[in-house]
Amino acid sequence: MTIAANLRNAPSIDDVVAAHAALRKRKPLVQALTNTVSTNFVANVLLSAGASPAMVDNPEEAGLFAGIADAVLINLGTPTAAQVESMRLAAAAAQKAGKPWVLDPIAAGGLPWRGAVAAELLAFRPAVVRGNASEIIGLAGLGGGARGVDSSADPAAAVSAAVDLLAHATAVSASGPVDHVVGRIGEHTVLAKIGGGSALLPRVTATGCSLGALVAAYAAVAPNPFAGTVAAHVHFSAAAELAEAQAKRPGSFAAAFIDALDAVDESALRQHAKIDIALVE
Amino acid sequence: MTIAANLRNAPSIDDVVAAHAALRKRKPLVQALTNTVSTNFVANVLLSAGASPAMVDNPEEAGLFAGIADAVLINLGTPTAAQVESMRLAAAAAQKAGKPWVLDPIAAGGLPWRGAVAAELLAFRPAVVRGNASEIIGLAGLGGGARGVDSSADPAAAVSAAVDLLAHATAVSASGPVDHVVGRIGEHTVLAKIGGGSALLPRVTATGCSLGALVAAYAAVAPNPFAGTVAAHVHFSAAAELAEAQAKRPGSFAAAFIDALDAVDESALRQHAKIDIALVE
Amino acid sequence: MTIAANLRNAPSIDDVVAAHAALRKRKPLVQALTNTVSTNFVANVLLSAGASPAMVDNPEEAGLFAGIADAVLINLGTPTAAQVESMRLAAAAAQKAGKPWVLDPIAAGGLPWRGAVAAELLAFRPAVVRGNASEIIGLAGLGGGARGVDSSADPAAAVSAAVDLLAHATAVSASGPVDHVVGRIGEHTVLAKIGGGSALLPRVTATGCSLGALVAAYAAVAPNPFAGTVAAHVHFSAAAELAEAQAKRPGSFAAAFIDALDAVDESALRQHAKIDIALVE
Repeated sequence: MTIAANLRNAPSIDDVVAAHAALRKRKPLVQALTNTVSTNFVANVLLSAGASPAMVDNPEEAGLFAGIADAVLINLGTPTAAQVESMRLAAAAAQKAGKPWVLDPIAAGGLPWRGAVAAELLAFRPAVVRGNASEIIGLAGLGGGARGVDSSADPAAAVSAAVDLLAHATAVSASGPVDHVVGRIGEHTVLAKIGGGSALLPRVTATGCSLGALVAAYAAVAPNPFAGTVAAHVHFSAAAELAEAQAKRPGSFAAAFIDALDAVDESALRQHAKIDIALVE
Repeated sequence: MTIAANLRNAPSIDDVVAAHAALRKRKPLVQALTNTVSTNFVANVLLSAGASPAMVDNPEEAGLFAGIADAVLINLGTPTAAQVESMRLAAAAAQKAGKPWVLDPIAAGGLPWRGAVAAELLAFRPAVVRGNASEIIGLAGLGGGARGVDSSADPAAAVSAAVDLLAHATAVSASGPVDHVVGRIGEHTVLAKIGGGSALLPRVTATGCSLGALVAAYAAVAPNPFAGTVAAHVHFSAAAELAEAQAKRPGSFAAAFIDALDAVDESALRQHAKIDIALVE
Repeated sequence: MTIAANLRNAPSIDDVVAAHAALRKRKPLVQALTNTVSTNFVANVLLSAGASPAMVDNPEEAGLFAGIADAVLINLGTPTAAQVESMRLAAAAAQKAGKPWVLDPIAAGGLPWRGAVAAELLAFRPAVVRGNASEIIGLAGLGGGARGVDSSADPAAAVSAAVDLLAHATAVSASGPVDHVVGRIGEHTVLAKIGGGSALLPRVTATGCSLGALVAAYAAVAPNPFAGTVAAHVHFSAAAELAEAQAKRPGSFAAAFIDALDAVDESALRQHAKIDIALVE
């Protein structure tokens, strides 16, 4: 195929709309092993968007449940030794069962203990890695590269690290003011930039964590993890724009955002989507 | 007594109003051993409704605190080994001290590890078991019956299982679009169906968990656990109807529901109560 | 210095305004080891007020992270054995690194296990102890004094206990309808009473916990912990008054309060501050 043909296969707004319809129809069950700050918000984001959450994260049940769930989120925000054991079991079970799972490597580049956990989990081949720019750069550095932790918040600076991580995952997202998602289409590496959203998102805790959970939900219903990741980011950004039209400060924005995840329909997706596709050289 | 006389002793709206007044006056202290998704929401539901929450759930203190609290909630949503040990200690201490405790057997029928925990906890004789229809059916099946896990969401299908569980508990609730609560009046088994509520309740995470906590609070102040369970469900459903009049989507509904639990007074109870009493044949 | 000169050095509204400006400029990173009910709310309070939260509370990372953070909150609401070990490590690391840390001794006077933990943690010299009146009295009693646990909610009754705790901490707050904060100015012990706030604050769970977190944030940017503690209480009370003007029940108040923490500016501080300074005889 030509490059142009490959780009025609890159995720489009029509693909986003189709994935959204599939999410609403299938209500995928997402097992979330996530941090203590985010559990309630992640569950409400999944419910409002159209998925079903289940936070089974003990070692006795995590592996079994990964075989029942449609997708798994593993978020390293507040890991404990027991939860890390659950993460290993859930990631292994998801890989074995062919279920997509998402790794959110919070602070993995800056804290050695969880960094080692994140590097170990990559061996179970997440469908998607999602983090902020610093986390993507930090995680890529753990993979043996020369990069250190970078506190830059600009996702554009993380594209190279994100591409490196495609050795371990099917799609990688560095989210921020403009989300940068990389994946492969045929032989080519493609960058999807998703704009929009709201400056209030980082003023509410666990919004990034909940985006990771939504990526897991979409990965369960989209044709492939890259398309699912793009669709999740577009749904998320559209909802943030709807919410910002209703609320100007963090407390009311948080409630409006949950409302908006429910309200986003095909029309809102088409109106708010800002997807820019490019080849990565 | 005749059957008719027994039914006259079944929980009525006047009993609900009296229990509500007692809740507001006595502000019972409810110890909640609950899942990580629900802790904040459960505490806010209890506070708004008129009770006092305390989430003491470590093995070092759980048993001691059950002797201090007025009632105990044990919710199996995200059990850990340490929390399960705390549950055993709290349930045993509550039983010994004659304090009512409520078992919420989340997913107990579908996951063997927690299923064994739930079955073991039944030996400490909960005042009330509260779950959705599938969970009540699943828990009853663990008791040695032939039933398997049923994913049906219709509480009417769980009445037989709920009645079986009266071997272990004084009242059993299968909650859903119409809540089905069973208990005994004299020699008779009575079913109280509580209607109303809102279709938005299952769109907000931990609402079911918070109903279990409210049942514990009412069990501490009502003449008996069956009456307390009915009163909690009526208060809860009335608040959901008030909230739905204010908010049409999950994020704003959640805040409106907390407001409404506070706002529910005798007038709202009498206006919104939908209680249907019948003998179980 | 004369007594009058010392009182002129006591925290004033100008000091509060300066600390608030420093908070907004420096966005201090607050490590919170807190209870499971409060994690999300504490993080959102810190974000809205202008700080940055991080809930690193496992033993593997807690000590390391205390050296990275600008301040540390240790809240004993739902301690586990592992979290207690993290608390020891974080408190020790904060003391060694000269970072201010805040102890919130929830129920320490009433529950022996956590009481022993609280007493042990005092040896790491918190910058600030913050609790309700009963907790301050209870903690002081653990220090060897003759006081028992007092269930009084009146902070005025806790001033003597708070002064006793100045043997271990630089400032001590007994918060309530009128917050009572004690510290030393030169040779004198000074009491700052901060009025205002809202009767809805105790109707929302984790508001007290979030005040402790805000104290930690201000302790990182103020000239000293006493000044930081007063500034945090004034910011908090001003936000509560703004929120109560918007919302009359707990659910909507909680969201309005998060909004108001963001909205509080110099003008709101000057308009709402109710600071009364007195010498403690």
